[in-house]
Amino acid sequence: MAYDTNNIFAKIVRGDLPSHKVYEDTDTFAFMDIMPRCQGHTLVIPKTAARNLLDASPQQLAACMATVQKIARASMKAFAADGVTVQQFNEPAGGQVVFHMHIHVLPRWEGVKLQPHTGQMEKPEVLAAHAEKLRQILAG
Amino acid sequence: MAYDTNNIFAKIVRGDLPSHKVYEDTDTFAFMDIMPRCQGHTLVIPKTAARNLLDASPQQLAACMATVQKIARASMKAFAADGVTVQQFNEPAGGQVVFHMHIHVLPRWEGVKLQPHTGQMEKPEVLAAHAEKLRQILAG
Repeated sequence: MAYDTNNIFAKIVRGDLPSHKVYEDTDTFAFMDIMPRCQGHTLVIPKTAARNLLDASPQQLAACMATVQKIARASMKAFAADGVTVQQFNEPAGGQVVFHMHIHVLPRWEGVKLQPHTGQMEKPEVLAAHAEKLRQILAG
Repeated sequence: MAYDTNNIFAKIVRGDLPSHKVYEDTDTFAFMDIMPRCQGHTLVIPKTAARNLLDASPQQLAACMATVQKIARASMKAFAADGVTVQQFNEPAGGQVVFHMHIHVLPRWEGVKLQPHTGQMEKPEVLAAHAEKLRQILAG
């Protein structure tokens, strides 16, 4: 399967597209999903090219999971979450829409279902506030 | 959050409970989900104690993801899948039912939705056949 260097997440990593950044290290980048299925819905991606789990390197996977854990732990505090759901989709049949590997980190609360994919974009000020909450916890 | 050494996945790792084993290495163990949401639904777990992503070590996460990738790639071949969905649940609000960290690897096909959680156990001979298909691909 091919990797398209102009996919939107590659553009976000390069800074060619804006994002509500939550975290960044040498190997990974985390930012708010602009169509969140819950408050605090964050995406973690490798900075280098990988279409998805099927072609990723062990190093990319390990680095992404370390960041997923950081975001999951921070989400519990930032949003007073009761749990976290992690999802990762590969190829269209697997649920993948953007073809740069990404891992969804979804804070969860007792009795609150995930919102369906509506295709509606969240207000930028809401995403900015959620990103700021996470950054504060991660910095603390 | 506490780790209960008598959870069913800990018992499976110790060999105190049977499972349809797919793969094993020094750090991880993979076996068929007995209530599969699709053909080939496999679980990957660390052999050592971790309640979930929130308390796992970086080494456990990296080892599990390397095995998840092996299973995902093998699933594509073994079941002629079109994609793979990966899910990982933390705490009851996050969807977790067994409190030993586990990652779901779900082969997917175009136009086929995941089955709902019915609580119905799959026939042992079906699970055995699926595990054998995966083991053959992994051995090849």
